[in-house]
Amino acid sequence: MQIELKEKPKKGATIIEGFPGFGLVSTIATEYLIDHLDAKLIGKISSDKMPAMIAIHKGQIIEPLGIFYDQKNNIVIVRAIANVNGLEWDITENLIKFAEEIKAKEIISIEGISSDGKPPEPEAFFYTHDAERKKRFNTLNIKEIDEGIIVGVTASLMTKMPETTFLFTEASSELPDSRAAAKVIEVLDEYLQLKVDFKPLVKKAEDFESKIKEILMQTKDVVSEKEKKESYFG
Amino acid sequence: MQIELKEKPKKGATIIEGFPGFGLVSTIATEYLIDHLDAKLIGKISSDKMPAMIAIHKGQIIEPLGIFYDQKNNIVIVRAIANVNGLEWDITENLIKFAEEIKAKEIISIEGISSDGKPPEPEAFFYTHDAERKKRFNTLNIKEIDEGIIVGVTASLMTKMPETTFLFTEASSELPDSRAAAKVIEVLDEYLQLKVDFKPLVKKAEDFESKIKEILMQTKDVVSEKEKKESYFG
Amino acid sequence: MQIELKEKPKKGATIIEGFPGFGLVSTIATEYLIDHLDAKLIGKISSDKMPAMIAIHKGQIIEPLGIFYDQKNNIVIVRAIANVNGLEWDITENLIKFAEEIKAKEIISIEGISSDGKPPEPEAFFYTHDAERKKRFNTLNIKEIDEGIIVGVTASLMTKMPETTFLFTEASSELPDSRAAAKVIEVLDEYLQLKVDFKPLVKKAEDFESKIKEILMQTKDVVSEKEKKESYFG
Amino acid sequence: MQIELKEKPKKGATIIEGFPGFGLVSTIATEYLIDHLDAKLIGKISSDKMPAMIAIHKGQIIEPLGIFYDQKNNIVIVRAIANVNGLEWDITENLIKFAEEIKAKEIISIEGISSDGKPPEPEAFFYTHDAERKKRFNTLNIKEIDEGIIVGVTASLMTKMPETTFLFTEASSELPDSRAAAKVIEVLDEYLQLKVDFKPLVKKAEDFESKIKEILMQTKDVVSEKEKKESYFG
Amino acid sequence: MQIELKEKPKKGATIIEGFPGFGLVSTIATEYLIDHLDAKLIGKISSDKMPAMIAIHKGQIIEPLGIFYDQKNNIVIVRAIANVNGLEWDITENLIKFAEEIKAKEIISIEGISSDGKPPEPEAFFYTHDAERKKRFNTLNIKEIDEGIIVGVTASLMTKMPETTFLFTEASSELPDSRAAAKVIEVLDEYLQLKVDFKPLVKKAEDFESKIKEILMQTKDVVSEKEKKESYFG
Repeated sequence: MQIELKEKPKKGATIIEGFPGFGLVSTIATEYLIDHLDAKLIGKISSDKMPAMIAIHKGQIIEPLGIFYDQKNNIVIVRAIANVNGLEWDITENLIKFAEEIKAKEIISIEGISSDGKPPEPEAFFYTHDAERKKRFNTLNIKEIDEGIIVGVTASLMTKMPETTFLFTEASSELPDSRAAAKVIEVLDEYLQLKVDFKPLVKKAEDFESKIKEILMQTKDVVSEKEKKESYFG
Repeated sequence: MQIELKEKPKKGATIIEGFPGFGLVSTIATEYLIDHLDAKLIGKISSDKMPAMIAIHKGQIIEPLGIFYDQKNNIVIVRAIANVNGLEWDITENLIKFAEEIKAKEIISIEGISSDGKPPEPEAFFYTHDAERKKRFNTLNIKEIDEGIIVGVTASLMTKMPETTFLFTEASSELPDSRAAAKVIEVLDEYLQLKVDFKPLVKKAEDFESKIKEILMQTKDVVSEKEKKESYFG
Repeated sequence: MQIELKEKPKKGATIIEGFPGFGLVSTIATEYLIDHLDAKLIGKISSDKMPAMIAIHKGQIIEPLGIFYDQKNNIVIVRAIANVNGLEWDITENLIKFAEEIKAKEIISIEGISSDGKPPEPEAFFYTHDAERKKRFNTLNIKEIDEGIIVGVTASLMTKMPETTFLFTEASSELPDSRAAAKVIEVLDEYLQLKVDFKPLVKKAEDFESKIKEILMQTKDVVSEKEKKESYFG
Repeated sequence: MQIELKEKPKKGATIIEGFPGFGLVSTIATEYLIDHLDAKLIGKISSDKMPAMIAIHKGQIIEPLGIFYDQKNNIVIVRAIANVNGLEWDITENLIKFAEEIKAKEIISIEGISSDGKPPEPEAFFYTHDAERKKRFNTLNIKEIDEGIIVGVTASLMTKMPETTFLFTEASSELPDSRAAAKVIEVLDEYLQLKVDFKPLVKKAEDFESKIKEILMQTKDVVSEKEKKESYFG
Repeated sequence: MQIELKEKPKKGATIIEGFPGFGLVSTIATEYLIDHLDAKLIGKISSDKMPAMIAIHKGQIIEPLGIFYDQKNNIVIVRAIANVNGLEWDITENLIKFAEEIKAKEIISIEGISSDGKPPEPEAFFYTHDAERKKRFNTLNIKEIDEGIIVGVTASLMTKMPETTFLFTEASSELPDSRAAAKVIEVLDEYLQLKVDFKPLVKKAEDFESKIKEILMQTKDVVSEKEKKESYFG
C-alpha cells in the first residue's frame, strides 16, 4: 500500500476522511464537500490487495481511494468508494504517516452510526481528547458520543491515532442516507467555518446519494455477472 | 502484537488476567475489580491481527485489551473484551514477557467452567504448583480442580507458564453469568486480602453483566449490518 | 510470473490486449485479429499460480496467455483464454514492463461492457488521456465512455497505466457475443488503418465464438469430472 | 514445533508412540502402558500451530503430546491426545531427530485399522524391514500386514522412517475400542518381554477407554460451546 | 519436494509417467508395465505438502509417487497413486530436472481423455513436436490429437516441457477403465518395441484395475472415518 501525491498541500491542513460505513454517510458527505469546495484530485491511496475494479462516472475515473485538496480552505479530503475490508490497519498507518508528512493540524474522521429507530432528524456526535475542540463542539450544540461500537478504519484510527477528531451522525438505515450526510456537512460547515450556503444542501446530498447508489448498483451487477461467468473457467 | 505501557507498575505486582470465556466470567470479574479498586488504564495490548473494532461506553473508549493498575494494592488487571481466537499463543508470550519486565510476583488467571447443571451456587476451584498458594486456597475452602478441558489463553498459559495461579468458577450457562463472576471476586478478595465490602457485590456484578451484554449486543448488530452492507461492494 | 519471448517485436509496436471479460468480447476479437493478420506466436505469459490446464484446438496447443506478432503492421496481440482471477495486478505489471522493453508506442485494451437491454446494435466507446487519440476516435464517431464499472486486468491497467487506450464495446449478454467482438474489430480496423476486408467479419467472428465456446465447454466438462474424481483421493 | 526434555533417557531405549487414530487404539494403549509401567513424564512436544487446549484429569494436566519414561525397562512412551492434523510431517521429523538424539534402538508405532466387520476378536499385524524382528513376530504368531491404507503420523513415519516397527490392531469400530487396545498391549508385552500380569488388562483398558472418552466428550462440549459463544464477538 | 534415488538409471532412458487422471488410465497402465517388465523400485518423489497417507498392498508399501526401473529396456516408470492437486507445477519441474540428471532421451506422458459416448473400442492419440516420432505414430496408425482440454501434471508438462511425447487414450467413464489402459499398453508396446505378449493384457489390466480400485476404496473409507473421528477433537 502506498500514497501517491501529485501535489503537496500546505502545512497545517485539515484532513477529512470517510470510509464507506453505516448509511454510506461518509462517502456521500466527502463527495459533496469535494464538489462544493471544488477540491481537486492531488493523489490516491493504492494497494495491490484491493480488488482490481474501477468506476467511471460522467467520463471520469473515480479513484477508489482518492485524495482531494481545497487550497483556499487548506482542506484535504480522502474520498473512499472501495471496500477496504482487511486493510483497515494498513490504511490507518498510511493516513497517519501522510498527516505527519504534510504537517496536518487536524484529522477529522466521519462515520455513520445506527439511529436505532429514533425520530427521523439525525443527530450528530463528536469524540475528541482536545479541550479546545470539545468547547467548539459544545458551542455548536453537538454532544459527545456516549455509547457505540465502531468498526473499520474509524475504529483503527481511534486505536492508533486517538488525537483524531471523530464526527458521528445517526443514519436511519443501512442504505445510503443523504439526510444523515447533510447533517455531517452542516456540522462540518459550522465547525470549520466554511461559510457554505447550505440551503440546497439536502437536495444536493440526494443527488450525490443517487450518484453513489448508481456506482454501487453497477458494481453489484458487474460482480454478480463476473461470478456467473467464472464458472466457465473453473 | 505489542504491549504499550504509559506507566510501569511497581516491582512485585500481582497480575490478574481474564480473557472472554465460558459465562464471560473473567471479563465481568475484571471489569468489576477495575471499578472497585479504581484501577487506572496504564497500557494496552494491540495487534493488527485483531479486527478493527472499538467500543465506546459512557463516553469512554473501551480498549479491547486494556491494562489497568491499582497502585495501592500493587495489582495489574488485564481486561479483555475482544475476540482473540487464533492469537492465544501470541498473547500468552506477551503476557509472560510483560510479567518478567515488571518483575511481577504472581499471575492469576480467571476462567469460567461449565457447572454441568449442578445446583445454582457456583463453586470455585484452583490450580497451582506452589505449595504455599495451595495451602492458602485450602484455608479458604477452595478445592483443586479435578477434571476439565481448558481452552483459549488460559490453556496456553497452562502450557507455557504453569507457575500461574489458575482460578476457575462454575458458570451455569454460556450467557454472561454475574453470579459466577461474583464468586470469583469473593475468592480473589479473600485470597488477595483486598478487604472489599462484598455485600453489594452480586448486585454490582449484575450491572457489569448488563454493561458487557450491551457492548456485545451492539457489536453483534454492527457486525451483522456490516456483513449486509458489504454485499454492495463484493 | 514471467513473460517468455522467442522473438522481439520492432520498436514502436502497438500492443492489443484482451483478457476474458463480459461477453468474452476481447477473447473473440483478439482471436479473430490473430487469424486475420496471420500473427504468429512469439511468446507467452506464464505463472505457476495459474491452474495447470491447457487447451488443444485443431491439433495446436492454445497457450492460455499467448503473445502474437504481426510484423507487417507491427502489432503485438496478447490473447488470453485462461481465468486470471487474483493475478490482475501481477499481469498488469508484467504488461507494463513488457511494453517498456519492446518500446511499444501504444497499448490498446479491449473490454466488453453491459448493454443493459438496449437495441441489438452494439455501440463502442473509448477512454484515453491523449488529445490526438481522442480526435481520431471522434473522427470515427466513437464516443467517450461516460459511465461504467470496470473490473479485472482492464481496471488494473486503468489504475497503473492510464496512458493506455481503452476500447469498450457493449455486449448484449454474458454469453460469448460475436456481434460485439465484430464491432471491436471494425473500430480497430479503422483506428489502426489495417484495411481489412471486414465484410465477412461477423460471419468469421461467429466461427471464433464457436471455437472459444467449444474450448470453454470442454473445460467445464473436464473440471466437473475432475471434481468428481477427486473424491476418491480425498 | 519443539521437543522439550526435562530428563534424557538412557542410550538404546525403545520408543513407543501412538497418535490418535482408528478406535483410539494407540492412545488407550499408551495410556495403559504409562500407568502400568509407572512411567514418568520427562518432556513434551509442543507447537504454536496446535489449538490452545489442555485437559485436566484427576487434578493433573494431561500434556497433549507428553513424553514418558520407564527407566527400568528403558522404554520411552509418546502419548498423544491432541488432534495433530496438518502437523504429521513436522511431528515425524521431530520424532526422528529425538530418536537419534537419545540413540534409541527401536521405534514402535501403534495404529488401529478397520476390522471390516470380522468376528470380534481383534487380530494384530506387524510391518518391519528387519529380519530379526520379523522372526520375533512370527514366533508370537503375529502376521505381517497384507492390505491397508495408513494415514496420519504412522503414514509419515512409514515414508520417512521405514526402519520403524509398526504394530497394527484391528478395531471393530471408530469409537474408542479398549479390546483392540488390550490386544496391542498383549503383543507388546510379549514382544518386549515386559512380563506384565495381563489378566486384568482388558478390564483396565476399559477404564482407560472411559478416561479418554470422558476427556474427549468434555472437549467436544467445550468446543461446541466455544463456537456458540464466538458468535457474540464475530 | 524432492526426488530420492537409490539407483541411477543408464544414460538415454525413456521415462514413462502417468498421474491419476480420467479413467485412471495412466495409473493402471504404469502399474501393469511395472509388473510386466518386472521393473524395480529405485526411488520416489516426496513432498511434505502431500497428505500423510500410505497404501500397503500384498505386504508391500505402495509409494504414492514411486520411480521404477526396467534395466533391460532402459525404461523408467513413474507410478503415481496419490492426489497431487496443487503440486502439478512443482512435480513437473522435478520431473524435468530428473530427466536432465539421468540424461533421458524421451519422456512419455500417459493421459486419459473422455470418449464422449463414442463406441466402446477406445482410440489412442499422440502429441509430439518431433517429426521422427510423429512418423513412428503414423506407421502405428495412431492419430494426432485434434481437440481437448488437458489438466494436471500432463498440462503442466505440455507448458513447461513441450518436447515430451504425449499419449492419450479415450476412456469411456471416469471410473477406473482397464480397457483404455490396455489400449495404452498396446500402443506403448508397439511404439517402444517391448515385444510383450499382449494377449492376456486386457485380463491383466482388469486385475490391476481391481487392485487400484481396492486401494482407492480403502482410501475413501479411511478418509471418511477420519473425518468423523476428528469431530471429537475439533
